[in-house]
Amino acid sequence: MSDIAMIEAAAARLAGHARRTPLLSSPFLDEIAGRRVLVKAECLQHTGSFKFRGGWSALSALEPARRAQGVMAYSSGNHAQGVALAAARHGAPAVIVMPADAPQLKIENTRALGAEVVLYDRATEDRDAIGARLADERGLTLIRPFDEPLVIAGQGTTGLEIAEQAAEEGVTSADVLTCCGGGGLTAGIALALEARAPGLRVRPVEPVGFDDTARSLAAGEIRSNAALSGSICDAIVTPQPGRITFPILARLCGPGLAVTDAEALRAMALAFLRLKIVLEPGGAVALAAALFRPDALEGDAVICTASGGNVDPPLFARALAEAAD
Amino acid sequence: MSDIAMIEAAAARLAGHARRTPLLSSPFLDEIAGRRVLVKAECLQHTGSFKFRGGWSALSALEPARRAQGVMAYSSGNHAQGVALAAARHGAPAVIVMPADAPQLKIENTRALGAEVVLYDRATEDRDAIGARLADERGLTLIRPFDEPLVIAGQGTTGLEIAEQAAEEGVTSADVLTCCGGGGLTAGIALALEARAPGLRVRPVEPVGFDDTARSLAAGEIRSNAALSGSICDAIVTPQPGRITFPILARLCGPGLAVTDAEALRAMALAFLRLKIVLEPGGAVALAAALFRPDALEGDAVICTASGGNVDPPLFARALAEAAD
Repeated sequence: MSDIAMIEAAAARLAGHARRTPLLSSPFLDEIAGRRVLVKAECLQHTGSFKFRGGWSALSALEPARRAQGVMAYSSGNHAQGVALAAARHGAPAVIVMPADAPQLKIENTRALGAEVVLYDRATEDRDAIGARLADERGLTLIRPFDEPLVIAGQGTTGLEIAEQAAEEGVTSADVLTCCGGGGLTAGIALALEARAPGLRVRPVEPVGFDDTARSLAAGEIRSNAALSGSICDAIVTPQPGRITFPILARLCGPGLAVTDAEALRAMALAFLRLKIVLEPGGAVALAAALFRPDALEGDAVICTASGGNVDPPLFARALAEAAD
Repeated sequence: MSDIAMIEAAAARLAGHARRTPLLSSPFLDEIAGRRVLVKAECLQHTGSFKFRGGWSALSALEPARRAQGVMAYSSGNHAQGVALAAARHGAPAVIVMPADAPQLKIENTRALGAEVVLYDRATEDRDAIGARLADERGLTLIRPFDEPLVIAGQGTTGLEIAEQAAEEGVTSADVLTCCGGGGLTAGIALALEARAPGLRVRPVEPVGFDDTARSLAAGEIRSNAALSGSICDAIVTPQPGRITFPILARLCGPGLAVTDAEALRAMALAFLRLKIVLEPGGAVALAAALFRPDALEGDAVICTASGGNVDPPLFARALAEAAD
């Protein structure tokens, strides 16, 4: 059961460990959007994405003896780094199961954060079987990336901060756009805002062609994506909404939005130019919707999460070059 | 007379208007530096640099009738934008005198922030004469970029935040590296730390070949640079320390440091990769010294300002490309 009490408890555990990220803005972005745009810069969180919140929330809630045996995650991306750093700071072993063809930089980063990386061959090996064997042999606790109440609660602390920071800006009624993959961040923020800022309504944003959450919300039941690759927004391409996250989204979120890869790249370039932050494509889709879908939004202000910034330099340079054209 | 009381007064005027920027860190940077590295991310300030603080401090302290007549600044860069936005938000006219060959983007940005831009020909026209005529005709108040106590006080609010944020991190004894041009930021931070965190010692960082402040500090009197162009760190290339700022620096700062353009570019790439912030070369020299001058520093931690992020995309792409080599 995920609720505001769990989020408040997670916030207490995260205090002094996670960053309270700033809510940024620029008059230049306001002009493009035709309304005020407030950007929650979670790319500035430890490990470069909000995932550290969920990782810390889960690790810090484990019974110490169990935690000391270690944790495990499946991830080639932001969740891996968030869990790895949270584990290292708790002095707990972390095993991250990654595909052998994951980017070398991500493998190296995860190792450098203190985790043991176990590689598997996507074509010939069964990830779940490898994970189950490791968990069994070593007594590791699996930290799921989104369908886990403690992780949702951790991501929800972002929503507590949004509620406070938006009120400081005088914004009490607005759409809150989230970069949405499995829905952990979206569900957590929605629960936090339901309790703390009911005039703020969460709306998930996804890549065109990978809008499983938007279609699931429209249908009232879980829908899947036809493809699992083909977008540069790798961080938020998931097969379908989670079994725990979706009912929360269905109860609390407004209609989903979808943006193209080109729009995500343009949003990355504008975040560089106007906010001085680094976003990865999957972390820029909410800003893209805020800027380029004005007719789909209502009100004088829009809030969006900028959920991560773990992007390789060549892709970032491409975003800058395309924006200059 | 610049002192802590003026800085505290400026902080009161800036409250709710300037951003309290975060103090960022990354275990990857700590490893390179061989000590903890804490980065005060002033690139996230309004207009992309700390200059908004000084601009707001000066504007907000003007007698309202005088402010309503308007303000003026000479600048092709960050001070122009800081003054322009501060004036716009006070409903005051702003005239920015810029060389006609300034980058088109900076001219456009300054106009877009509501300022009137007056262009002059560097080869044939006298900037000061143009400014004096405008000030005389329209009753404009000149806002100097660094040799102005109200501006120093505004920049000093950065130091108040550093004192608090460093204490929260458990750091009470460290070198504080600043990106130093005319010395407004450096003097302001030094005054703030003298009063609020006397274990933190300011040390200015400049580009190699443009280290007028370091040489002035070593000599005990003001020294000038031989050249006024030739570094990519345009924001901090100044002829010599200010007449008001230098005595403050001489009393409070430790020895200056200098880094190469190549080191500034590497620091930009590492800030991109590890902190997810955008720095311009002149805003990256302090981080460069923190990372690449370990033997010149003492102690378990170093604090550095990341003072601005107004960099053109092609130069930023170059920093990323060179770091990948």
